[in-house]
Parts: sequence; structure tokens; C-alpha cells
Amino acid sequence: MLNTLIIGGAGYTGQELCKLVTTHPQLKLTHVFASAGSKNAGEPLPLGITGQIQDGHPDAIMAAAHDAQVILLATPHEASAALVPQLREHSDALIVDLSGGFRLEAGAYPQWYGFEHPAKELLAKAVYGLVGWNDKAIKGSKLIAAPGCYPTATLLALKPVMEAGLLAGLPIVNAVSGVSGAGKSNKPHTQFCEVSLAPYGVLGHRHQPEIAQHLGHDLVFTPHLGAFDRGILATITVPVKAGTTQAQVDALYQQCYGQHPSVHLSGDLRRQAPAIKNVANTPYAQIGWALDEARNLLVLASAIDNLLKGAASQAIECINTHFDFKLRPLPGYGWEAL
Amino acid sequence: MLNTLIIGGAGYTGQELCKLVTTHPQLKLTHVFASAGSKNAGEPLPLGITGQIQDGHPDAIMAAAHDAQVILLATPHEASAALVPQLREHSDALIVDLSGGFRLEAGAYPQWYGFEHPAKELLAKAVYGLVGWNDKAIKGSKLIAAPGCYPTATLLALKPVMEAGLLAGLPIVNAVSGVSGAGKSNKPHTQFCEVSLAPYGVLGHRHQPEIAQHLGHDLVFTPHLGAFDRGILATITVPVKAGTTQAQVDALYQQCYGQHPSVHLSGDLRRQAPAIKNVANTPYAQIGWALDEARNLLVLASAIDNLLKGAASQAIECINTHFDFKLRPLPGYGWEAL
Amino acid sequence: MLNTLIIGGAGYTGQELCKLVTTHPQLKLTHVFASAGSKNAGEPLPLGITGQIQDGHPDAIMAAAHDAQVILLATPHEASAALVPQLREHSDALIVDLSGGFRLEAGAYPQWYGFEHPAKELLAKAVYGLVGWNDKAIKGSKLIAAPGCYPTATLLALKPVMEAGLLAGLPIVNAVSGVSGAGKSNKPHTQFCEVSLAPYGVLGHRHQPEIAQHLGHDLVFTPHLGAFDRGILATITVPVKAGTTQAQVDALYQQCYGQHPSVHLSGDLRRQAPAIKNVANTPYAQIGWALDEARNLLVLASAIDNLLKGAASQAIECINTHFDFKLRPLPGYGWEAL
Amino acid sequence: MLNTLIIGGAGYTGQELCKLVTTHPQLKLTHVFASAGSKNAGEPLPLGITGQIQDGHPDAIMAAAHDAQVILLATPHEASAALVPQLREHSDALIVDLSGGFRLEAGAYPQWYGFEHPAKELLAKAVYGLVGWNDKAIKGSKLIAAPGCYPTATLLALKPVMEAGLLAGLPIVNAVSGVSGAGKSNKPHTQFCEVSLAPYGVLGHRHQPEIAQHLGHDLVFTPHLGAFDRGILATITVPVKAGTTQAQVDALYQQCYGQHPSVHLSGDLRRQAPAIKNVANTPYAQIGWALDEARNLLVLASAIDNLLKGAASQAIECINTHFDFKLRPLPGYGWEAL
Repeated sequence: MLNTLIIGGAGYTGQELCKLVTTHPQLKLTHVFASAGSKNAGEPLPLGITGQIQDGHPDAIMAAAHDAQVILLATPHEASAALVPQLREHSDALIVDLSGGFRLEAGAYPQWYGFEHPAKELLAKAVYGLVGWNDKAIKGSKLIAAPGCYPTATLLALKPVMEAGLLAGLPIVNAVSGVSGAGKSNKPHTQFCEVSLAPYGVLGHRHQPEIAQHLGHDLVFTPHLGAFDRGILATITVPVKAGTTQAQVDALYQQCYGQHPSVHLSGDLRRQAPAIKNVANTPYAQIGWALDEARNLLVLASAIDNLLKGAASQAIECINTHFDFKLRPLPGYGWEAL
Repeated sequence: MLNTLIIGGAGYTGQELCKLVTTHPQLKLTHVFASAGSKNAGEPLPLGITGQIQDGHPDAIMAAAHDAQVILLATPHEASAALVPQLREHSDALIVDLSGGFRLEAGAYPQWYGFEHPAKELLAKAVYGLVGWNDKAIKGSKLIAAPGCYPTATLLALKPVMEAGLLAGLPIVNAVSGVSGAGKSNKPHTQFCEVSLAPYGVLGHRHQPEIAQHLGHDLVFTPHLGAFDRGILATITVPVKAGTTQAQVDALYQQCYGQHPSVHLSGDLRRQAPAIKNVANTPYAQIGWALDEARNLLVLASAIDNLLKGAASQAIECINTHFDFKLRPLPGYGWEAL
Repeated sequence: MLNTLIIGGAGYTGQELCKLVTTHPQLKLTHVFASAGSKNAGEPLPLGITGQIQDGHPDAIMAAAHDAQVILLATPHEASAALVPQLREHSDALIVDLSGGFRLEAGAYPQWYGFEHPAKELLAKAVYGLVGWNDKAIKGSKLIAAPGCYPTATLLALKPVMEAGLLAGLPIVNAVSGVSGAGKSNKPHTQFCEVSLAPYGVLGHRHQPEIAQHLGHDLVFTPHLGAFDRGILATITVPVKAGTTQAQVDALYQQCYGQHPSVHLSGDLRRQAPAIKNVANTPYAQIGWALDEARNLLVLASAIDNLLKGAASQAIECINTHFDFKLRPLPGYGWEAL
Repeated sequence: MLNTLIIGGAGYTGQELCKLVTTHPQLKLTHVFASAGSKNAGEPLPLGITGQIQDGHPDAIMAAAHDAQVILLATPHEASAALVPQLREHSDALIVDLSGGFRLEAGAYPQWYGFEHPAKELLAKAVYGLVGWNDKAIKGSKLIAAPGCYPTATLLALKPVMEAGLLAGLPIVNAVSGVSGAGKSNKPHTQFCEVSLAPYGVLGHRHQPEIAQHLGHDLVFTPHLGAFDRGILATITVPVKAGTTQAQVDALYQQCYGQHPSVHLSGDLRRQAPAIKNVANTPYAQIGWALDEARNLLVLASAIDNLLKGAASQAIECINTHFDFKLRPLPGYGWEAL
């Protein structure tokens, strides 16, 4: 059992991490710290899990980190960027950071996150935790940046087409996220009566460069907020190479994901489509596709739970991949031997 | 006061028509008939309106039609296509059909609606009721096909760009509709627990040819069902002519809609965006835009209430246009002199 | 046309007042002021209504009040209590206050509202605006306290039984309100993801003394917050005099409300029940009842829109009653001659 | 590992059973049958669980039952009542029936379920599976009737007061259920747009006699349907013996549930209250209370997930109790050694 530490345990993602670690056969949840400066210390852990959030004083964190084999960070972006170098000094543990603090190239931080990255050397060594597509790097690194929620939904759908060399133009990505994606803090635009379906971050969301960098291709990304708690649906329209057939696309997705432990295929979108209700509160992605052979246009749909596959459960899958734990996520928060 | 007849008054759209006619200063609601074969005869009209749904026996309808100046049809597509010729025989009234029975060219009906159109001559004379863009035809015809909900949201957003000659490629339209768009009848996929955000009708929805025909340009249209009662949000990504500027687009939308009684502009999407909550239960469209000048890509967002601006209130605006009633729709169901 | 002034026009209730006054045949909306100290000055009025929120500087308010015949206050409780005496000095207008500032006896304010009432003489002259039950007083007073949302739903259901002398024990009132009842300000517990069905204010909500005082009988009142925007459903269980019959109760409600312009009866709850969807976005209450003749227990259900019948539209009905305008509220925001 | 059979696996409860059995360390899911006559045979099991629904032909069921140690029935009430005697002939397995087919006394079936019970001898031997309150009987019987959803929420809250002899009058139970409680079949009143908060089954719901029988006291029970997927909140107002104190009630609930693996206490309702969001998608109940010492009235609130603690997870807890498996349900669907 690996001693496991969660920092930033009071937020929506942190709470999911607590449940996923508790049910994990190889991880032992030793400490759950609040983010520095938060007022959540002393709060109970999620219903059904014994314990409480500890005050995130740096000394306490570093002492716990020293004895940990796994450290999960669900802290704000800039906090993660500052914390990881300190943790690395005190600990050899595998660090999985769920913030945006280690996902982009150093030069992109001032524009997209508003700060100069304080740990460029570590950033250069961080690997992107897109499970199934970057596993060799995940196995080989002690610092993993778990992908963002929109990038996970988008990249899982687009990677097969990109890697197969079928992409022939700009993907147009329209995605809708549940409100938990905005985090737990108090914001006027996430008050209950203020939420309804609307686009935001048009032509300027920081997940656009994250997707572009890890896809290796430019795109148009338009996120939306929807009036539901959890889940993301990304619908993608993308030109493909002339002559591509539906049968070819069927085979491609089957080959990439037919045996995948956490990506499920719904098949041709004209018959059945991914839906938020199929994946909310699960660690699974669900992907469907439909090719317009006459116009060489591929429509993709990809659904995930933003807090699980889009954050916490993918972070645990990174741990499984790194340590070669042969585990499959069960519905809810459990893990089953493959 | 014009005697006004509603056929198909028990459905969601029919109920909204009842309220809009009741509050109208120039219309007198004389009869509300159920669709033929429905079991709704005898049901009360919406709360606050005296009267009940009458049995839709053809004799009763034709007698009432004879004395009417306005006939509103909220009947199923094929029922409308069959009913309009009979009504025309018995009545000189303005007929506004809210179904899809008179929106497409005759040749398109077998593929998209599954029937050979029974009234091709009348269909050839029917005009498309897109208020603000087809007003001369609306004034001149006694048979108006009120536009579909998705086409209304999409066309109101795209028409300015199209008519200004700025369109330079295939518009990608992603739209999400509330569940009332699926009508009132009992369907497994609209059971409460079965609804969540998901695409449907991918590459094969009948509103695609409707939009294409009345826009005059092909497009990709992907509709979605969302877990809310009312409203449509369409998000559109479209290539525009190189060199187009944001200022030019700002001016274009101001010119088209700055004084429009039922289309409101939210402006640059990077600052403020249309939202379902802004238009649900109102007769208004809300439109925003953002131009990526570097990539010559325009992102448009358009929000309407699918039952009002996407159906019933636009139908009444057709009447206002036809008879030259100078009226502006108020929030809710009222009308104010311009 | 009476010059009408709204103070506190930026909140949810204030916005509804704007729409209701705009559509009113006898009222002319002259000014909409922000609450003192709010940052809403300069914001546009609701979609479809021309104008904007004015800064609520006392001098500007008093100048406008001087020329007004009607003043509507949708300000916080303590602000209303302080503002009304100043308004009275500058104006003879009918004042309708929608806050809790003039609903209780003076002695109750420190306990329930946390302040000593600053205008006890005016408070003593204020009348309770429960339309249909206090009309003579409403006609005779220039200061009307519009009832709270929960009290409106509860009192409309219980008054017939109480006044008929059938009440024989403590009414148990369980009510669920939509989130707009908590107002527009930013609160952690009304963040979208934090809202679900839960009781609050148990044994200590300030609407308990309001109901008790205006019913003339003690009760148990347990409010709940539900995950929806608008509407209140109150379900009431109350012992009645032995020997009461269902037929007697049927007749009683028909007599009280059979001709009422804004209270609709759904009849025996065993056949049909009031529902939030029937009344949301309408100015109507819907009431049903079922008598357990064996146990002498009456179950009542009462549904309203908390922002309309529970606030703004009842406030306008107070104006109608005071000035003897013979008007019936239409679905949405319109008014029709009786 | 005990061979475990699910009959009626395609409904909402059946799907939850599949997940709970899959994650259980002592149970092996061998067969999932459709209810007789359903069209669900061939459908896949829930996302993440390998396998499909089998056709529920009696021969296949009886053959599987012969080799099973545990049989879970999520079949309709009358189907369960008919099926249990046949299963008993072919199998010694522990049978847990989640329908209402074995919860009431034989004489109550014609009135409340509309059929004469076909297996009165077995019914007389069936025990009520209210875990924590009927454990000795659950250990001793091979036929367990898992409690209904409303009865679970209500009885868990009321049992402590009843058993302590504090109950001094008729409990008034108001409860709101999510729509999944109405099952998966297609019904007009559970269409998405038709659902909102409303009472139903007033003075005539079949869970009233179930609660009364297993509480040992009459009550008034008013259920409501709310516009959400999962969860039940029951709010109960009940007279208690004069002189009862809040401290006494605090101690009573701590004593009954302080160590309970699936009942959590939120404490005094005036400080914190149970909420649907706390328990939805979990196997936990959450209970709070507040005593009005002046009026000797106790207000209780009890929240559960109707499909889990109100059905499937309590059924598994019955198995744990019967076989003395020392397990605690984890958040989601997992189980942990006590």
C-alpha cells in the first residue's frame, strides 16, 4: 500500500479523489490537506469516509510528503506551480497535479494563466497524463500533469483521427460543461438562478492551447456552461481526408478503444449517441462518431464526468499506469483487477 | 378585431398561441380545436384563459374557418399539409401553419417528412415567415409557413452575414433544444430520467434542408437535446471573407437588428453572451458574435424560446406583418404599440 | 395613467415589477431606481423594456416620489422601514412595500428581523395586502405591506377554513421554494452545485410569525429550498372540526375562490393536484384539498410563483384593489378588463 | 463467493443491483434476467460491467436459481408474489424481494395492490428488511422483503422515537421523491416537461400502510414528485411526550445511529439539515431533528437515495446481515471491511 496524500481536498475534485483513493486496493489515504489559505480545515471528509480536512500549513504538508509515495494536488493553478518544487525537495513521491500548473509550455503561462511559471525546469520534465496516449511517458516520470476536463473529452475523441493521419482541416469543438467545472468558490455567474445554457470564453479559453499542444493541431474551441451539476459533452466537426469511409473510422475507434478500461464506444452517432447521463458519476468516457462520406466531414461526440474522467479518476489512472497496477475502474469509485 | 381560430390547441405550441392571441389588441380568439383524432377535446384552456379545447371534427372546423380572418395551425406536419387545402376552400382567412408542412420544396417531402406532399400548388404559393427577412412576401400571401425552431435561431444569426456576402465556407451549427421541442406526446426518450445532454439527428435532421433552402447555402447542423424545458441555443462557427473586421460585423448586426422589435443584440461574445435564461418565456431572440480576425472565423450565438420566437410568437408576428399591425411583443405574452 | 416609481428594480422581484407595470393599462413606469448602495445603476431594464436602472440617490428618489401616484418598494427589509417615512414626507402616493418591513407588529421586529422598527406610527397604519381577504383595508390605506411568498401560499389555502370556523388544531405547513426566493445576491448556499432539496429555517423562519399574525392562529412552518428557479408549493395538514365533510369543503373553496381573478382551484387532491409548473411564470395561485373524513384531517396544497403572486403581481393587485381598477391578470404579465 | 442472481435487471433498481453485486467481495453475479415479458433481453449491463440482460424465461430462471445462493428480485409487485413460490421450490437460496409483494399482511393486498396474494404461507414467513431494526429476523429467514423507498426514509427517522416511547400523536410525513421512483416505463406524467413539484397519492398511497404496519403506529403520509432524478427527502412533524428535551433526543439518535455503517446524522436541524445532494448516488441515509420544547413537537428530516438505501443497497445490506458479512458500504458502489 502506497501512502497517499491529497492537497486541496475540500473542493469538488478533491472530494472525488478522497473517495477514489479510499476504494483503491494499492493506495492508503494518509492525509487530506486544505489548500493553503482556505477555510476548510476541520471539515469532515465526504459522507462515508472517516476523517477530516487538515490545515494546509507548509510544514505539515512537507512532513507528510516526506513519508508519502503518492501526492495528489487539487490546488489552484498558481499554487500548484509554486508547491511542486517544494514537494520535490522533500519527497521522491509520484506527484500528480490536477491543476493547469504543469500542462503547457513555459512560454504560454503569462498569456493563458497570468503568471510567469516559477519552476520551468520541473515543468520541462512534467508529462501529460492522457491515459492511453502517453503511457510510456507516464510510466517514466515522477511528475504528471493530469489533463483538463475539456481537453480530456476532446483529445480522447480526436487523437485516433489525428494519429491515423486522417485530419484534414480545423476541428470545430463545441463543448458544454456542468457547473461543478467552475469549482466550489462563490461566484455571481454560478448562482443557481443565473445559470442556464450559454457560451463563455469564446475564442479565448485556456483549454484551447492545451488541446492544440497535446493534439499537435490548431482548432476552434467554444465552451459553454449548462444548467447541470456534472459532466461534459464535446461535439466536434472536423474535415477528414477525401475517401475516408465510415467502415474505416469504425475500425479505427475499435482498434484504439475496443479494449480500453475506461473509454466506451457508442458507435455510429446516427444510431446511438453519447449522453451526459451515461457517464455522470462514472469514471468512463463514451465516444461516438458519424462520417459524412459525401462531404468528408466527421462528427464526433465525447461525454465524460468532468470531475472523474476529466479530473480525479484519470489522475488515479495515471497512478495505475505509472506503477503498472492492472486495474479497471468500476462504476462509482471502485477498482477491479484486469 | 379579427376572428382567430387555433387548430391543434392542446400541444405546447397551441397553448402558447392561446395566450398570445388572448392578449393581442387586434385578434379575437373564437375557437380552439384539438388536432383531429386527439383525445384533448374538453380540456380547459391554459390557466387564466376561459374556455376549453373543442373537438376537431372537420365540419366544425370548416364552419368556424368560414367566419375567421386568421387561422393558426399547430397540427402535425402531414395533418397540416392535408388540412390547408380544405381550409382554403372554405375560407379566405390568413392561414399561418406552424408545422413543417409548407416549409420545403415539394420534392423534399418524401425524404425528410416521409410523405408525398398532397397540395403542391398551395405549397408553391406558401411563403416562409421569417419575420424581418421575408416581410414583403409575408404581406402578399394568405398562406404563411412559420419557420421551425432551430431554423429561426440559426437563420436570424446567419442571414446578416449571408446577405452581406461575407460567408466564405460551410457554417457549422451546433444547437441545443429544451425538451418541449419534442412535443407533448409520450416518448421513451423524453421520460424525465432519460433526458440529459446528447446529440441526435446527426447528419440527418429535417431542419438542415429547411435552413439550407432559406439561407441559400449548405451547412452542417448538429442538434442536441438538453435537460431543460424551453429554449434553444445555437452556436455557429463560420468562415468569413478574408479581411473582414470585428467593427464591420458589429455595424452589420446593428444595422440589421438595432431597431428590431423582437431581436436583441448582446454584442461581442467575448464580453457578454446570449443565454437561454435571457429569452426563455419571452418572444425575443438574443444574438451575439465574435470574429477571429487572424483566422477569418466568425462565432455566432443565438438564443430563443423554442415555443415562442421559435414557433408561436413568430407566427403572431407574421400576422402583424401581414396586416401591418404596428406592434412590439412585450415580455410574457403582451403586445405594445410601436 | 398613474406615475409609478419602482425602488429596488435590479433584484428578481424588481424586474418582475418592471414588466407588470409596463403592461398595465393604468400605470406609467416613470423611474426605476436601484436600492441604495447597490452597484446596479446603469444596468438595462429587462429584455424588451426600454430604459435603465437609475442610481438610487435619496434626492433623486424624493424628487421622483413627489410626482408619483404609486411607489413600489422592492428594497431590503430594513431599507424599506427607513425609506417609507421619508417617502411619506415627500409624497402622497400609494406606497406598496414588498419587503418584510411593514408586515409584523412593532414588537416582533427585533426578534425576527434584527432591528428596532424606526417608524412605529406608520407601521401601525400599514395594512396587509392579502388580496381577496383584506380588500377593504387595502382600499382605505396609502401604505400597503405586500405579503411574503410563503405567507401568500399558506394564507390563501388556510383562510377559508379558518374564517369558516373549521380549524381544530395546529396546521402543519411544509413548503418548498425555488431558489429565486433567496434573492439575487451572491451566497455560498445558493451556488448551483450546492442547491438540492433540504429544509432550512426549521422552527425559526420569520414567515412563521407573519402567517400566524394574519391567520390568527399558531402553526408549525417548515420551509425547504428546492433545485428550481421559481415557485412555491405549500402542503398543509390540519385538523378540522369533527363531522366536516368533503362536500362542505368543496363548497367552501368554490365560494371563496370560484370567481377570483387570480386564484384557481384544482379541486380534490385525490384526482388532481396543484403543481409548480402550472403556476410558474404566472400571476396565479392554484389550490387543492382533500378531507380525511374518518380522521377529521384536511390536506391542502397551494402553488404560486414566488416572484409574482408571492410578490410582484400581488403588489399590483393591491394597486388595482386600492384604486378600484377592474382588472384580471393574464398569463405572463398582461392585464385584462374584468 | 455466493452465486447471485438478479431478476428484473433492466429497471433503474435492477441496474443499481448489478453494480452493487459486482463490487461485493462475497457475491458473484452469475445471471441477470429481464422481468418476464419485458423487451430488455439482450441489452448490455450498465457501462463498465461486462455482460447482458438474459431473457427471463421461467425454465432458465429456475435452472439458474437451483445453483444460486442469493436471488434478488427487482420485478413488479404481482410478478414477485407469483415468482417467489416457484423459486422456493427450485432453490434454497436467500431470496430478497425488492417489490411490495411481501411487505404487508395478506389481508391488505386487495386494497393496496389490487390482487389477492397468491402465496400467503410464504408471505407469513417473509421478514421485513429494515436493516438495523429487524436484524435478528433478517438473520433467521430465507425470504426478505426489502423495504420501500418512502418507508425506509420515514422509518429510519421515526423508529428511535417510537421505540423509546416518546411518540405522542400522529406523525405528519411529507416526502418528496425524484422521478426514478416511478420506474423506467413510459408514463405521460413522468415526461420531462410534465414533471414539477406536486403532491400525489394524497390520503391513498400504498406506502402509508407499509409504514404504519412496521412502525406500529398510524400516520398521515403525503408523497410528492419533484423534478430531479434520484433521492427522497422526508420531513416529519410529530408530537412527543411532554417534557422531552432536545438533549434527550440528541442522545437517542446518537445511541441508535452513532456507529451505524449506512445512517449518518446531521444533528440539530436548526444548524444543519439533511439534503438530497448529500445522499444521492450514495448508500447512506442522513437524518436530522429539532425539538420545539415549548410545544412538544419534534421535526425530523431524513434523506436517502431512493434507488440505493431506498432499494438496492439496503437489499445488499440485508444479505450482509443475513450471512453476517461485516461490511460497510462505501460512497458509490463499493464495500469495505468493518
